[in-house]
Amino acid sequence: MSVTGEQLLWSRAEFEDRLRAQGKAYHIYHPFNVMLNDGSASKEQIQGWVANRFYYQLAIPIKDAAVMSNCTDRAIRREWVKRLLDHDGCDIPGAEDEGGIEAWIRLGTATGLSREEVTNLQHVVPGVRFAVDAYVEFARTRPWQESVCASLTELFAPKIHKARLATWPEHYPWIDSEGLTYFRNRVTQARRDVEHGLSITLDYFNTVELQKRALDILNFKLDVLWQMNDAMAQRYGLPNSPAAAQRPAPEQAV
Amino acid sequence: MSVTGEQLLWSRAEFEDRLRAQGKAYHIYHPFNVMLNDGSASKEQIQGWVANRFYYQLAIPIKDAAVMSNCTDRAIRREWVKRLLDHDGCDIPGAEDEGGIEAWIRLGTATGLSREEVTNLQHVVPGVRFAVDAYVEFARTRPWQESVCASLTELFAPKIHKARLATWPEHYPWIDSEGLTYFRNRVTQARRDVEHGLSITLDYFNTVELQKRALDILNFKLDVLWQMNDAMAQRYGLPNSPAAAQRPAPEQAV
Repeated sequence: MSVTGEQLLWSRAEFEDRLRAQGKAYHIYHPFNVMLNDGSASKEQIQGWVANRFYYQLAIPIKDAAVMSNCTDRAIRREWVKRLLDHDGCDIPGAEDEGGIEAWIRLGTATGLSREEVTNLQHVVPGVRFAVDAYVEFARTRPWQESVCASLTELFAPKIHKARLATWPEHYPWIDSEGLTYFRNRVTQARRDVEHGLSITLDYFNTVELQKRALDILNFKLDVLWQMNDAMAQRYGLPNSPAAAQRPAPEQAV
Repeated sequence: MSVTGEQLLWSRAEFEDRLRAQGKAYHIYHPFNVMLNDGSASKEQIQGWVANRFYYQLAIPIKDAAVMSNCTDRAIRREWVKRLLDHDGCDIPGAEDEGGIEAWIRLGTATGLSREEVTNLQHVVPGVRFAVDAYVEFARTRPWQESVCASLTELFAPKIHKARLATWPEHYPWIDSEGLTYFRNRVTQARRDVEHGLSITLDYFNTVELQKRALDILNFKLDVLWQMNDAMAQRYGLPNSPAAAQRPAPEQAV
């Protein structure tokens, strides 16, 4: 412990605790997500979530490539590229994997969406787009260590994936269980990713100012995820509030 | 063939021929490179080339990650990521590879440089840095298809690698042959890469204006490689011209 100005530098353990404590603002507590997991979501709300969240899934490898393109540390890139392979899939002999994006498309078809209406992004609402785009822009323009820190919402991800695996089969038996493969895979992958990301973050943010910055960054990323849920709640409604009015369609050019 | 303004759209085969014809400006013809391959280079000139070119090697995966971070086509990224793995190396079971950067470091030590003086970039001259940085900036900021086109100097790379493999062991027997592994690997890798890059380029640049743009882009990349050789020739000299004066060392802060 050392004193800088009026605030103490947190020990590594305390810093990690503070980061983990941010989990109280994770979107697992958002009313839209609570609705999905307590069984009160309609088929349209589930489909809406899957179709909108796909935009985030598409952005993940773009974001991870941006992290690598800002990172001059080869050892870090060698580890980080595994995230890219996890999402995009891989046809390297011995490591073949369809990838998380493909698994998500199959989650979509398991909920009754067509492959095309998932992949053409027709259901994605502007609030989701803007939030996800803000995250990609962050990764493009900020030092790679800050993007690693932003990725630490993975700290809280295994819990949310497990909650889906625990509740969806009971509440929504009409979703083919095979469609939940994405969640099953991510429980393991997120655990590996978070160990790596956490160790980088604890090393890099090593002054009082940087530790505070790390909390702000994680908070920004939590905003991204929460705002996505806000936008979906607006569009698809909540148990106690109906869907908001949609923007009138623009005039067609004659 | 169609007519647009005064210029004809080249057929796919003719477009490819025009791209390949740019090879006349490849750095294989630069006096510095000619000197390396005809056996008239001194040990210091060879070491200088290896140490400076390392800066380019370091930039390649950064550039390739930038290409992927601009590319929304998952199939392209899945193929492109192999370039990243080729250079950074890979510890995925079954696909383990030390990677091209490590192979280049061993080329450095085979020429008598220490690992440290290769990796700390102490020999890299500003003209090489600026040229390489211009290429990375291009990949960061331009549409990914333009970066693919820029990578097509790979069309000419197998020839230059083969020339090194054919001439260096005879001219420079003091370089451990194991140090030439990088060149051996790239002959095969460049062939695979160029097939992919060429097919993307021939598809994307499909108007008269775009075909002209493709030639300009390839020309830009040839400038990058040529300028690197210019800068090295200035620093290390050519058979008929001595090394240029070096910039005086800056005053040391007291």
